[in-house]
Amino acid sequence: MELLRLLAGHPQAKVEVITSRAEAGISVADMFPNLRGHYDLAFSAPDVAVLNSLDLVFFATPHGVAQAMMPELINAGTRVIDLSADFRIRDIALWEQWYGQPHGCPQLVEQAVYGLPETNRERIKGAQLIACPGCYPTSVQLGFLPLLERNLIDPTGLIANSASGVSGAGRQAKIDYLFAELSDNFKAYGVSGHRHLPEIEQGLRDLQPSTASPAQLTFVPHLLPTIRGIHSTLYAKLLDTSVDLQTLYEQRFAQEPFVDVLPAGTYPQTRSVKGTNVCRIAVARPQGRDTVVVMVAEDNLTKGASGQAIQNMNIMFGLPETAGLNQPALLP
Amino acid sequence: MELLRLLAGHPQAKVEVITSRAEAGISVADMFPNLRGHYDLAFSAPDVAVLNSLDLVFFATPHGVAQAMMPELINAGTRVIDLSADFRIRDIALWEQWYGQPHGCPQLVEQAVYGLPETNRERIKGAQLIACPGCYPTSVQLGFLPLLERNLIDPTGLIANSASGVSGAGRQAKIDYLFAELSDNFKAYGVSGHRHLPEIEQGLRDLQPSTASPAQLTFVPHLLPTIRGIHSTLYAKLLDTSVDLQTLYEQRFAQEPFVDVLPAGTYPQTRSVKGTNVCRIAVARPQGRDTVVVMVAEDNLTKGASGQAIQNMNIMFGLPETAGLNQPALLP
Amino acid sequence: MELLRLLAGHPQAKVEVITSRAEAGISVADMFPNLRGHYDLAFSAPDVAVLNSLDLVFFATPHGVAQAMMPELINAGTRVIDLSADFRIRDIALWEQWYGQPHGCPQLVEQAVYGLPETNRERIKGAQLIACPGCYPTSVQLGFLPLLERNLIDPTGLIANSASGVSGAGRQAKIDYLFAELSDNFKAYGVSGHRHLPEIEQGLRDLQPSTASPAQLTFVPHLLPTIRGIHSTLYAKLLDTSVDLQTLYEQRFAQEPFVDVLPAGTYPQTRSVKGTNVCRIAVARPQGRDTVVVMVAEDNLTKGASGQAIQNMNIMFGLPETAGLNQPALLP
Amino acid sequence: MELLRLLAGHPQAKVEVITSRAEAGISVADMFPNLRGHYDLAFSAPDVAVLNSLDLVFFATPHGVAQAMMPELINAGTRVIDLSADFRIRDIALWEQWYGQPHGCPQLVEQAVYGLPETNRERIKGAQLIACPGCYPTSVQLGFLPLLERNLIDPTGLIANSASGVSGAGRQAKIDYLFAELSDNFKAYGVSGHRHLPEIEQGLRDLQPSTASPAQLTFVPHLLPTIRGIHSTLYAKLLDTSVDLQTLYEQRFAQEPFVDVLPAGTYPQTRSVKGTNVCRIAVARPQGRDTVVVMVAEDNLTKGASGQAIQNMNIMFGLPETAGLNQPALLP
Repeated sequence: MELLRLLAGHPQAKVEVITSRAEAGISVADMFPNLRGHYDLAFSAPDVAVLNSLDLVFFATPHGVAQAMMPELINAGTRVIDLSADFRIRDIALWEQWYGQPHGCPQLVEQAVYGLPETNRERIKGAQLIACPGCYPTSVQLGFLPLLERNLIDPTGLIANSASGVSGAGRQAKIDYLFAELSDNFKAYGVSGHRHLPEIEQGLRDLQPSTASPAQLTFVPHLLPTIRGIHSTLYAKLLDTSVDLQTLYEQRFAQEPFVDVLPAGTYPQTRSVKGTNVCRIAVARPQGRDTVVVMVAEDNLTKGASGQAIQNMNIMFGLPETAGLNQPALLP
Repeated sequence: MELLRLLAGHPQAKVEVITSRAEAGISVADMFPNLRGHYDLAFSAPDVAVLNSLDLVFFATPHGVAQAMMPELINAGTRVIDLSADFRIRDIALWEQWYGQPHGCPQLVEQAVYGLPETNRERIKGAQLIACPGCYPTSVQLGFLPLLERNLIDPTGLIANSASGVSGAGRQAKIDYLFAELSDNFKAYGVSGHRHLPEIEQGLRDLQPSTASPAQLTFVPHLLPTIRGIHSTLYAKLLDTSVDLQTLYEQRFAQEPFVDVLPAGTYPQTRSVKGTNVCRIAVARPQGRDTVVVMVAEDNLTKGASGQAIQNMNIMFGLPETAGLNQPALLP
Repeated sequence: MELLRLLAGHPQAKVEVITSRAEAGISVADMFPNLRGHYDLAFSAPDVAVLNSLDLVFFATPHGVAQAMMPELINAGTRVIDLSADFRIRDIALWEQWYGQPHGCPQLVEQAVYGLPETNRERIKGAQLIACPGCYPTSVQLGFLPLLERNLIDPTGLIANSASGVSGAGRQAKIDYLFAELSDNFKAYGVSGHRHLPEIEQGLRDLQPSTASPAQLTFVPHLLPTIRGIHSTLYAKLLDTSVDLQTLYEQRFAQEPFVDVLPAGTYPQTRSVKGTNVCRIAVARPQGRDTVVVMVAEDNLTKGASGQAIQNMNIMFGLPETAGLNQPALLP
Repeated sequence: MELLRLLAGHPQAKVEVITSRAEAGISVADMFPNLRGHYDLAFSAPDVAVLNSLDLVFFATPHGVAQAMMPELINAGTRVIDLSADFRIRDIALWEQWYGQPHGCPQLVEQAVYGLPETNRERIKGAQLIACPGCYPTSVQLGFLPLLERNLIDPTGLIANSASGVSGAGRQAKIDYLFAELSDNFKAYGVSGHRHLPEIEQGLRDLQPSTASPAQLTFVPHLLPTIRGIHSTLYAKLLDTSVDLQTLYEQRFAQEPFVDVLPAGTYPQTRSVKGTNVCRIAVARPQGRDTVVVMVAEDNLTKGASGQAIQNMNIMFGLPETAGLNQPALLP
């Protein structure tokens, strides 16, 4: 739904086909009432020949689906952006352990480019297959990035205390996601191990100098009574307390169109990025002690998924990186 | 804030000046975190000479403010869209009774054009001064319009049961609008008389054939635990039960870019128009009895205020009526 | 869950058995985290012999279930309070039409006593089988009661514009009741006909003098983004505008422990009755015209269901009517 | 409001006087709509002679107020429970630094007993002046208690990532606490230093063996879009990974009526304690690494304030510790 919403306002993209076996024949506008008047399309069953005739195919599917269809698309030369977890983790055994099933397309994993523009822009330009990062992983990697690149923190004791709106769970009819269960409530979940943990640790290690000890993260996600929004509060022990953290962050992201380092003493809030591709970051060192705190806010459906996918598309096709992603957040 | 958000995405509008005596010197982006990166402006004290150099001035001010400044602007030939209630009511004594103060500019009331495009488009084109309709009045007038125009209902017993998100009250630091007072709550208010009642009755009477008895409305507003959204449920007694209500509504609004009559048996919801200028309407006759029920959903800040103001601007300046107002609602 | 919560604090009730085929063996405290430490019981499959050994059996089941088990219980002399719709409607054909299935126990319908204490207290005392009123019907009947009893309004054009929190739908895993669908949203539903309509019209007609035209109601329910709470705004045309409505309401309910008529000019809010058995009512005549407006707030799970069931139990067993129902609402 | 709500249901307490200069003469039931029918009292200006005639006086006032009135009460032998921060911190210079004003009653600070029953029950019994713990401090101290008492974690790198519902801020008419600012939002605040930090660190150090390094805490509070509820997620580095953490927690709190250690693998949620005095705790060691994670949920207004005050009262007056505090949470 979010991809369709954003693509409706993209000046150079046109949605030709929307596939869904389960919903085949249903009008997009009937399913998603906000799209009435914006799309005349109906869902259709996926047809590889049709998909291969397009410039680009997005997958926004449960894990396993993209793996099954990918060889036919890739062999035909079609470019693909996969929003699922299917091609994010390079260690196939690790993927199989966390997702509890055999990998359906291990031969293409190496070819997939991890679609985090802030670390991988050059490789994205020429990529045929993009593995778009997860919502939590985007926030945690961007938050730790300036510190890990320069080896300024103890990488073995990283903590990410994250909170997400419920749309992160997708549109599933489960008791757990009912209004009456979530409203006016807050809790941690997945404490013993969330599937985003191996993706994040892989990404954090990619940021480190080769000589550093591999990053180890304690990751505790929480469920917010909001529809959208991820907020990650990151903690690490500084190895060097002489660094000007504010300047470090501002300089590292100065050229990034979608990372906004906030002025010192102000903190990001999820509503300020609602519906946008912007990731807002603040860094602090409370009481002048040696624990650094980084706060990151993003919209889990936009920078955490569909907006980042379009950012990747813009890079892949040589369009302005911000095309179709320029609207201010809806606030209040 | 909503005007600025929408104008940031308008292809042919440029905001030159933002005035506020109280906030003079403060950056717009510091006050409204969603506008960081979209505006470099700071608030400034209002200066009539500067305002008169512009193509258009919007007022989004408490009642009374626009009345005080209007003569200087109008005399200089400046075009103005006033979002406040200052010029909406033609009967000056009635205005003074409901707003509890003398009218500050009675001489310009006659010249003001009521900015409801669905009834007044031609007069808006040439207007110098637009009185933009209130949020509740827009929903109630559009909902009753097809029935009143054709004298199909008893005009003396109209009922509008409306519910609004809290942003309708503006950004005031009052106990009544605190999260802890409004969240998880619902109530009626202003039952003995809401200031929008005389505006609505004037508008409804303007829709009636001259021979009809003047419309009389019982209007009960309620406060929703949402930020945005107005939903009006309208009731009237049909004088003629042979009319095909669905066809009546579809035909009346077929050419209207921002009124969407829903298919029979489906009903509007406020989230489907969040952040958009669309007003969604459904009509029903429960149990085949002689009471007609009309349901209307709009975003109180957009079609109910700033979006409609921009729609008026587009009409006044010969721009495409939908310019800058084309984004789908943010959903979920 | 609400029955168990209230019974945990009732000084003279003890829950002996909780039945559920689907959940048999599961601890109540594991299913409902607020009951940890309050109940040691586990769900068990229903066993009629066990139920017949108890003083009282509550049914809080989907429609049809109570009908199937009722004969065995009633024949054994067991007293029963049924919170479902199974025995509320005296016209069996009407029940079958609205519920779309044959009635499973028509022979006991006549014997069932409609459990609205404010109109039926004497009959409740001696009843063996109570049909506990629905949530919407409780609010609409109590609101119209003083006016209909005295034939003060036109009974053929009654309107009930009601809004309910989502808990009214029960704990069902449906897309419609997800947080992401309901939060920050408002809409009407069931406009063409809600199952509570025939129950309400039957109840309203029971209130009227025998000479009056039968009450006809237009009933439009809406869905609130709250967990609990029903608010009904009622409209009718006064046949006699000389009546002091405030005094009428205050006198009619002066002896009722759970109906609170608010001072003139104040209106009920759902949060003020959250978790309590109190129904708050206000009456108004806007602009001194001939339309009367009645506002009613109740907790749909308490006065609208489980609290009223316990009120019935207290009456049936000669306990103080307010026993176990005396806590103030949780506010804020 | 919460104290009054709880005391209305307390079997052995009677509220004689409610003082407020600003609200003198206003009926309690007019101010707090949930208390209609439960209190006949009106606010009155504080009168020391009247207060000294009572068994117990509660202060729920802004900081500084209790300090000003305390000497007269204490000298007269009156027992007092102060819910404000006035007597919580033993280091007077530290109090003055964080609260930005001179301490108004330093001579009574030493005599005040910190009212955390789980660590201080014996001293509370005989106390004349109780300094009731803050909401965040209660959750953080109870969560770290079993680990710090036995010196099982590195005390110099403690982290408390806490989130609170907005009622923690009291009933203040500030823009920051409006529905339109908080709803559908999440953010950190007070990162550079929250006034609860010195109280928490003092409390944590009181738990440690005398030989341990003094506890140092990084404390980051966040604002939840809920009315009630605090959830603290605590992180520390284990010095000894051989300890059975689940057993440690269960045994430490086995006799505590208001601390509930959850079964392994389940996590607390704020709604499960809404309106109750229960604090629910879970402990985990993700991936079997050496970081321990403790999750704590409480109601900030109950166990975090008024409920704990009543628990102290019960202990002080030899009542059952759970008197008046036994209701299950309102859920859903």
